[in-house]
Amino acid sequence: MAEKFVYSFKEGNKEMKELLGGKGANLAEMTSIGLPVPLGFTITTRVCDFYYKNNKKLSAEIQEQIFTKLKELEIEMGKRLGDKNDPLLVSVRSGAASSMPGMMDTILNLGLNDETVEGLAIKTGNPRFVYDSYRRFIQMFGDVVMGVEHKFFEEIIHRIKSQKMIKFDNELNVDDLKRLIEMYKQLIKMKTNKMFPSDVHEQLSMAIDAVFNSWNNDRAITYRRLNNIYGLIGTAVNIQSMVFGNMGEDSGTGVCFTRNPSTGENKFYGEFLMNAQGEDVVAGIRTPRKIEELESIMSANYSQLVNVRKILEAHYRDMQDIEFTIEKGKLYILQTRNGKRTSQAAVRIAVEMVENGMISKETALMRVEPSSLNQLLHKQLDNNSKKNMKVLAKGLPASPGAAVGRVVFNAEDAYEWAVKGEKVVLVRLETSPEDIEGMHSSQGILTGRGGMTSHAAVVARGMGKCCVAGCSDLIINEIEKIIEINGARIREGEFITLDGSSGEIFLGKLELVEPILSGNFGKIMQWADEYRKIGVRTNADTPKDASTAIKFGAEGIGLCRTEHMFFEESRIKVMREMILSNTKQERERALLKLLPMQRGDFYSLFQIMNGLPVTIRFLDPPLHEFLPKEEDKIQELAREMGVSVEVLKDKTAELHEFNPMLGHRGCRLGITFPEITEMQSRAVFEAASEIIKEGKSIVPEIMIPIVGNIKEFEHQKKIVDETARKVMRENNVLIEYKTGTMIEVPRAAVTADELAEKAEFFSFGTNDLTQMGCGFSRDDSAKFLKEYVELGIYKRDPFETIDQEGVGELMKIAVQKAKPVRENIKLGICGEHGGDPETIEFCHKIGLSYVSCSPFRVPIARLAGAQSSIKEKKKIEENAYKKMIKESIIEIRNKFGERISIDELENELYKKINPKAVENLFTQEILQN
Amino acid sequence: MAEKFVYSFKEGNKEMKELLGGKGANLAEMTSIGLPVPLGFTITTRVCDFYYKNNKKLSAEIQEQIFTKLKELEIEMGKRLGDKNDPLLVSVRSGAASSMPGMMDTILNLGLNDETVEGLAIKTGNPRFVYDSYRRFIQMFGDVVMGVEHKFFEEIIHRIKSQKMIKFDNELNVDDLKRLIEMYKQLIKMKTNKMFPSDVHEQLSMAIDAVFNSWNNDRAITYRRLNNIYGLIGTAVNIQSMVFGNMGEDSGTGVCFTRNPSTGENKFYGEFLMNAQGEDVVAGIRTPRKIEELESIMSANYSQLVNVRKILEAHYRDMQDIEFTIEKGKLYILQTRNGKRTSQAAVRIAVEMVENGMISKETALMRVEPSSLNQLLHKQLDNNSKKNMKVLAKGLPASPGAAVGRVVFNAEDAYEWAVKGEKVVLVRLETSPEDIEGMHSSQGILTGRGGMTSHAAVVARGMGKCCVAGCSDLIINEIEKIIEINGARIREGEFITLDGSSGEIFLGKLELVEPILSGNFGKIMQWADEYRKIGVRTNADTPKDASTAIKFGAEGIGLCRTEHMFFEESRIKVMREMILSNTKQERERALLKLLPMQRGDFYSLFQIMNGLPVTIRFLDPPLHEFLPKEEDKIQELAREMGVSVEVLKDKTAELHEFNPMLGHRGCRLGITFPEITEMQSRAVFEAASEIIKEGKSIVPEIMIPIVGNIKEFEHQKKIVDETARKVMRENNVLIEYKTGTMIEVPRAAVTADELAEKAEFFSFGTNDLTQMGCGFSRDDSAKFLKEYVELGIYKRDPFETIDQEGVGELMKIAVQKAKPVRENIKLGICGEHGGDPETIEFCHKIGLSYVSCSPFRVPIARLAGAQSSIKEKKKIEENAYKKMIKESIIEIRNKFGERISIDELENELYKKINPKAVENLFTQEILQN
Repeated sequence: MAEKFVYSFKEGNKEMKELLGGKGANLAEMTSIGLPVPLGFTITTRVCDFYYKNNKKLSAEIQEQIFTKLKELEIEMGKRLGDKNDPLLVSVRSGAASSMPGMMDTILNLGLNDETVEGLAIKTGNPRFVYDSYRRFIQMFGDVVMGVEHKFFEEIIHRIKSQKMIKFDNELNVDDLKRLIEMYKQLIKMKTNKMFPSDVHEQLSMAIDAVFNSWNNDRAITYRRLNNIYGLIGTAVNIQSMVFGNMGEDSGTGVCFTRNPSTGENKFYGEFLMNAQGEDVVAGIRTPRKIEELESIMSANYSQLVNVRKILEAHYRDMQDIEFTIEKGKLYILQTRNGKRTSQAAVRIAVEMVENGMISKETALMRVEPSSLNQLLHKQLDNNSKKNMKVLAKGLPASPGAAVGRVVFNAEDAYEWAVKGEKVVLVRLETSPEDIEGMHSSQGILTGRGGMTSHAAVVARGMGKCCVAGCSDLIINEIEKIIEINGARIREGEFITLDGSSGEIFLGKLELVEPILSGNFGKIMQWADEYRKIGVRTNADTPKDASTAIKFGAEGIGLCRTEHMFFEESRIKVMREMILSNTKQERERALLKLLPMQRGDFYSLFQIMNGLPVTIRFLDPPLHEFLPKEEDKIQELAREMGVSVEVLKDKTAELHEFNPMLGHRGCRLGITFPEITEMQSRAVFEAASEIIKEGKSIVPEIMIPIVGNIKEFEHQKKIVDETARKVMRENNVLIEYKTGTMIEVPRAAVTADELAEKAEFFSFGTNDLTQMGCGFSRDDSAKFLKEYVELGIYKRDPFETIDQEGVGELMKIAVQKAKPVRENIKLGICGEHGGDPETIEFCHKIGLSYVSCSPFRVPIARLAGAQSSIKEKKKIEENAYKKMIKESIIEIRNKFGERISIDELENELYKKINPKAVENLFTQEILQN
Repeated sequence: MAEKFVYSFKEGNKEMKELLGGKGANLAEMTSIGLPVPLGFTITTRVCDFYYKNNKKLSAEIQEQIFTKLKELEIEMGKRLGDKNDPLLVSVRSGAASSMPGMMDTILNLGLNDETVEGLAIKTGNPRFVYDSYRRFIQMFGDVVMGVEHKFFEEIIHRIKSQKMIKFDNELNVDDLKRLIEMYKQLIKMKTNKMFPSDVHEQLSMAIDAVFNSWNNDRAITYRRLNNIYGLIGTAVNIQSMVFGNMGEDSGTGVCFTRNPSTGENKFYGEFLMNAQGEDVVAGIRTPRKIEELESIMSANYSQLVNVRKILEAHYRDMQDIEFTIEKGKLYILQTRNGKRTSQAAVRIAVEMVENGMISKETALMRVEPSSLNQLLHKQLDNNSKKNMKVLAKGLPASPGAAVGRVVFNAEDAYEWAVKGEKVVLVRLETSPEDIEGMHSSQGILTGRGGMTSHAAVVARGMGKCCVAGCSDLIINEIEKIIEINGARIREGEFITLDGSSGEIFLGKLELVEPILSGNFGKIMQWADEYRKIGVRTNADTPKDASTAIKFGAEGIGLCRTEHMFFEESRIKVMREMILSNTKQERERALLKLLPMQRGDFYSLFQIMNGLPVTIRFLDPPLHEFLPKEEDKIQELAREMGVSVEVLKDKTAELHEFNPMLGHRGCRLGITFPEITEMQSRAVFEAASEIIKEGKSIVPEIMIPIVGNIKEFEHQKKIVDETARKVMRENNVLIEYKTGTMIEVPRAAVTADELAEKAEFFSFGTNDLTQMGCGFSRDDSAKFLKEYVELGIYKRDPFETIDQEGVGELMKIAVQKAKPVRENIKLGICGEHGGDPETIEFCHKIGLSYVSCSPFRVPIARLAGAQSSIKEKKKIEENAYKKMIKESIIEIRNKFGERISIDELENELYKKINPKAVENLFTQEILQN
């Protein structure tokens, strides 16, 4: 049987998006439920695929099917395309399975030529309208189909308006329009060396080609890449009879939402213009009116529209974005789709629809984009105040929220100014661990280098602090304390404003608004937890982080980076004392000073976490990170330590590494300096003892970093175990604890079976696993990774979302090797990826026990976790149905013979299986076979 | 049936080394072929294992078996241990399966006490000898068994000799000895608070314990680690009746080799002393005499010994190292073992034994240690001149051979001095690519930092140049041009001598000798090729390297590092011009200048390789490696390039990377600058065109480095293919070529299935794969890797021999994923590991097609490759036999019932299967069940 390439709107339904595109499927659906949709038909997305495969030509068979449907349309409409007296006019529009608003091409008013225009002018008795439609058509066709740039048409129209000294297009009279039409045609001839086609069928086939071609224009490709739209085969083409909102004062056009897309309020919301076409609304020449006002103008149409609102929302069970046109008092619905909404609205709509019984909790949870929750958690810029400001530059939106403050250029200034009560924004070429305190003191951080996972970005997200990173347009002169940017200069102390959600930088103070976490937010979170199977912990090093995370629903600490505890001013001195030690004794003396501080840190965390698990990672970074690099700081430190500058420099040189990423860090430090591991173990167990003596509970989980070899782990575990025994004996308490390892070195992943024999848990350190697995240094890869993503080598920045095929494969290998050895091994992830929804879904799939992310990403992770469970459940159901369909098809074919038609086959299937399932899956199944 | 723990010498044979140790098995073997071996028995290595597992105690059962064998010995000897009138004296010696000379303990003359000594004095009529034996026994027992340091005994003997004003021990008379004995006993009492045991059975059991304990003394542990001896369960203990070479002028003792262990000449070789014990030979008090001289002294014993030489060599089919003692005219053989020999001797002996029909080629090939061939290829230090020189310091033996030259401190000086005809040794803290020319100009390289695979080491080995690396005892002051070392100072221009095989550094000029590659060497190589299945290629970047490698038998170039071609002075300028380009056009202009140079390089290589495959790796290192780092060089370059110092510094800063290892390098450069890949492709194909036009053949293999993602490879392959097509069209020739990739990023290994779809060959870049897989930077890991090896975390430095469990696992994963996709994919290795015999065996096992190594390692690889094939063949045979034995045991048991004794079982087996195979494998099989 021949494949069906063209569907009339009466033949499709909303489940057929893959084949008919979103627009086509929805037009068909609306037609089927009896809404007033102008007649038309859809050419399938499969044709787009064939078009490209067939050297941009449509086969005779496809052309034949289009022609047949056009004939049917002409008969139903009682009009013919190209009829001199009463011509049919159509629109030709794109529409892919995923919405790509404005990316592909549209042609309106197709069917007009020098002959039909005259007939139509007579027929309508409105020649101005008809000639205006004709010139709009030529302009659109010339631009979209024939490739003559829009600006040339605009120049001509501008010239005529100047000559006539008029301001608006609608002041042109019929003669002006006729002159314009001639000039447009000449323009096209001149620019393309081709005539504007007067043959209406040629117009149609050129327009169809143009829509298919627009699938692969730069804009569309970029849009798909940026929005992670993959796996589509092309766009459908919708050919629909034209209706006109600009045929007089009994006509109009508008856009409405079934609920408020900004707040989510369940109130009809929209705008309209009388005597206008859709373009006019967009062009912004006239100010549209609120939808409620339509009632007083055309009350019948209004109540019709209100009815449509109800029908469509009830039918689609989601907030709809509806386009309508009223032609001479008759309402037409031109489009409906799920409306875009703010996160606030998304949450409210989802919750209210569940409460109204319109949708299930599952559906509600799937409706909210996890990452968008970010917007709800951070201080935000007031969009109104943004509108009037010029964007100074744009960096990477590294940590959401907004910040307003005076520019300072180093961490000390940030601290000092903040102490004096100033709000500051810390501007650095890049930040380093020494800047932590300064970052804490700042409203936001702006860096000239580094990516989404640079030090500044990671720490800022961890702090829930706004950050714009890697803004390479800035020339930051830290010495002279000046930012140069496109000629402008910003000096220390001047105010700037950062938008961490968009990466925009503004000069001056913009207004901020506090986020309001509504009760709906809490409900969504609660429902998410009902469905979620994967645990959610947080990366937290301080009591403040831990409290925030608990507030957001974290179920434990998955990563406490102990080194962050050593960067505080009072501590870094002792740390440096330890590093500069020449003997084990000296080192132990310094460690003895650090012990009570570290014990205090753990005690506070254990208190706050109140029995929830706390995973403590032992010292990770190479020691040189704790030493100053600048000459003046070195001199200062030398003075403080009472050593010569030379000694200090020698030590620094000795510790210098060519590739610190791959250097003397993690457990390698603990192995060469076992006393460090011993001190850290002691601090953990002594703090746990205190907690337990207070009658509370705690099960510390000690995590050894940078393990690549089971022997490294055994070495460190021995120290941990021995220290635990000692402390328990000293304090006469019993402490339950676990010892586990990071999986961040590729070797650890491929020897996970060995590791699982001794380690009670694994936590995937996917930042380092990505660095080592892909061989990218996070600090250096910005140079080429952007280009890599643009070239499609990696779909997304592998530091943002896990590289499933590569780094993910290493994770899978590790899981597959570990589970048979230790069935109940606890598996987590604590890299930056732990807060990325796509990564969370991947972790759920490969069977991890939990994800750990920065406090502000905990809600995101909770929702993403729930979505993963729901998707998995759906996948299982779908597979069951697919299997059932497959088996039934075989059964039916056995019964009726191979030559049963697809339609008959489908009908037989409906008798056997839930029709809803068949609708959705049957097409896929058939297409695959 | 109870396990047999003690074997009389009559019960064992030479195949039972695992159980009886080397010494025990050989004593048994000699006994069985009728050689005059003093009677005795062996306690098995299994007992050592039980000893440790049983809290250092022997079970009653084992003690019982020892007692029984002792009884048997007493009966045969007609003497009893502890008999006051005619006591049996025994030696108690260690002996593991692998030879560990001098590492474990030995006790001689056991059985003497205050009573037996008197009886024996009367019996022998030689009281001086007997009392001397007694005091030697106490001294040895006190030291080895009771832990009283040797030096205390020496002090006492020294005191007595001073008092008596005598010089040698043998001048002590009986009374002196008696006094000495008393003082020794008091010493022991004082130091240990225990009496020296007069009970001879207590002596025996203490001695046995001491030997078992010595298995785990520090010396023995270190020896096993250093010599890669793993998997042994312990030492055996040999208890043997004493014979004495110091019973007068008709007694003597000696050591002899069946052939010359230094040259391999087939001539009896050895030394002896009359009236002496083994110790005396070692002590060096008297000068031993050549073995031939024995003929004139004791001609009967001599001809007996000559006969033993024949028998043992014929029996063992290998050069033997024999210890003998003549007691009152009777010859005893105390030990035989395969003799240690120089590589030169090893080759000669192996070849001559094959030619005499004594051994097969397979055996001959297995006899030569591949790494030892190194000694034959490089200029060597004359061992005689070494003997008299003080070792100044010791570094890592990074590249073998020797070098004598004047110290210079930088590459330019090296070059300039060399041009003037001076021989120089380049001394650097560490070397960098800029030093290449200076390294070329030097006799050898000495560095203060860096390991066996540091830049200096790798490049030196590649050049076949002597290098001592990472000599941390040196304080190298490159500015003032002084080396400080243990207080001494060496200034520029002073002579030093390096021994690259031992890592030793000498002050002054030592004599060097040219290596002579004998015909035997060629024969071994030819035989190796007959057995070898894995290919051997070379890493060569220059015509000189390529020629050397061809001479050594390379079958192609496995790695031509194109970047090395850019470091020559004339080229690095153009390279820098390219790097400093601001636009694609500028860059292309510079590349156009590089093209003819690069083409010329390839042309020369193709010429030399004469049709053999040549794998060309495209540009790999990050660009900043080509820019100077020192202030003066930067200024010079700025002048030359006509740019400001600031511009140059900015560019360098822009190119600076935190982790260059993981930075913008390899194909990442080729992707951001496709014009580089294009130039390199063009150079390859244009050179190939020329060669083909000359009527010769060449199949260039283009290798893309640092690929981690199939899309990177596709991107680069497209440029290669397009350029190939262009060049072929331009030159009207057809060039066959292959495009493949390095596997050096872990991600590449785990996505090898994807890569294999497009890549025609893989080459494992195991240096980088180790760096990324283990997360070690080669340049930084020296700090902890040494300790890691000492702690046994890695058995060997993973940059020297492949880490089979980790990096090897990644390789296996890659091979397993690639082969099903592309059955005949060519798989190679081109890291430094390619020349390491253990790694070669691993590569053979996992199914690689070839290894590629530096020219001077080609012969090593050829031999190691052959050994891998032979081992594999043997393993297959062994497994077949094991299977046969297993099945036969079941059959026999079925026939005779479960209770058949082990001996009967073995006898039945002999009837069924080749006895040789049974002998060897039966024990293992039985022990496992």
